[in-house]
Amino acid sequence: MQIKVIKNILSLNDAVATRIRQNMDGRSLTLLNLLASPGGGKTTFILALARRLAGQLRIGVIEGDLASSVDADKVAAAGLPVVQINTEGGCHLEARQVEKALPQLPLDDIDLLIVENVGNLVCTASYDLGEDLRVVLSSVPEGHDKPYKYPKIFHNLDAVIVTKTDLTPYIDYDLDEFKTAIRSINQDVPILPISATKGDGMDAVCDWLLGKLRSRPPSKGL
Amino acid sequence: MQIKVIKNILSLNDAVATRIRQNMDGRSLTLLNLLASPGGGKTTFILALARRLAGQLRIGVIEGDLASSVDADKVAAAGLPVVQINTEGGCHLEARQVEKALPQLPLDDIDLLIVENVGNLVCTASYDLGEDLRVVLSSVPEGHDKPYKYPKIFHNLDAVIVTKTDLTPYIDYDLDEFKTAIRSINQDVPILPISATKGDGMDAVCDWLLGKLRSRPPSKGL
Repeated sequence: MQIKVIKNILSLNDAVATRIRQNMDGRSLTLLNLLASPGGGKTTFILALARRLAGQLRIGVIEGDLASSVDADKVAAAGLPVVQINTEGGCHLEARQVEKALPQLPLDDIDLLIVENVGNLVCTASYDLGEDLRVVLSSVPEGHDKPYKYPKIFHNLDAVIVTKTDLTPYIDYDLDEFKTAIRSINQDVPILPISATKGDGMDAVCDWLLGKLRSRPPSKGL
Repeated sequence: MQIKVIKNILSLNDAVATRIRQNMDGRSLTLLNLLASPGGGKTTFILALARRLAGQLRIGVIEGDLASSVDADKVAAAGLPVVQINTEGGCHLEARQVEKALPQLPLDDIDLLIVENVGNLVCTASYDLGEDLRVVLSSVPEGHDKPYKYPKIFHNLDAVIVTKTDLTPYIDYDLDEFKTAIRSINQDVPILPISATKGDGMDAVCDWLLGKLRSRPPSKGL
């Protein structure tokens, strides 16, 4: 009974995700679903990306949180168009919530729309939001064993970004162990380590991302 | 429909949790439900507690993870009795899983049984496991704003333990801001900062915990 209901919810969600993709087909906008644990560094990453690609790429954001507008306030303060979704207890975003948020954004003026999902390494993995790219952040202080413990989220994604690498000297963390754990689940996914606060690795992330956009933005400086 | 099914699941869970409490009533064992984000420091905390209270308190552990026995292996290597529950994708532990694990442990030889829940700040909050104590760990690298974004888990609990305080010098984290955020939700819950790896704050946590046990253990050195 429980399983049947969950299957129904997922197939309803998939139908809305498909509709989002169809509606986006005429646009040059790229939709990115950003997943991580609570405190994995999602908002800090978005703000670092926006600073780095200012003048080159127009970024918009949909913020998903159980409650509050803490993240949306930070993103708005950086001058990015943003919509906050409060799930009111819900443990993940669903496609219907994203579909409802889209008309509230100036879609013609956005090249990359980042959906910052609820901080959750489990439930978010099952819900397609109609995205073009699915990126998981895994922070150094969470430890290098997370892929073994939360395998599903690392199966079906476009990149793993290892955040907060500036904390490595102070923590028992081994990036090679993390890569081994990822490769036990996923042979091909790019693994990109960064420190969003220090800037390390951000060039590689920007290069990867710019190569994945639906339409190439003008080269820097134009 | 979805809401009704979820209500049914929760009331079934509550019935099992009540049965666990009834069965534990004749015992001196204290059951502790330990909640945190992925990588919040749950296993490191358990191991630090076991080292500190060795010879004074007999600790057993039930490990909850989607997959793997990474944590149970660590706990077993420290000589503690442990059972691993794999939820196979499930985002939280349920009382029925704990009830099934209990007979696999030497309950007569355990004073404190810690259930390390799945790393998840959302779904775990809704499931009573028949515990005597509910403790949430919130790690410094997750940031001081988490209570605003995941309020439910901070409503109904016996203590908040702030972990990884040794990382504070390297992170934009303000413990006073965290306390303010907690107090906006919960006026009374004790807030105990620790570094499990360095030992800071562990005395206060042990004192708090020993005062909350169903039966007082013999004083240290006996």
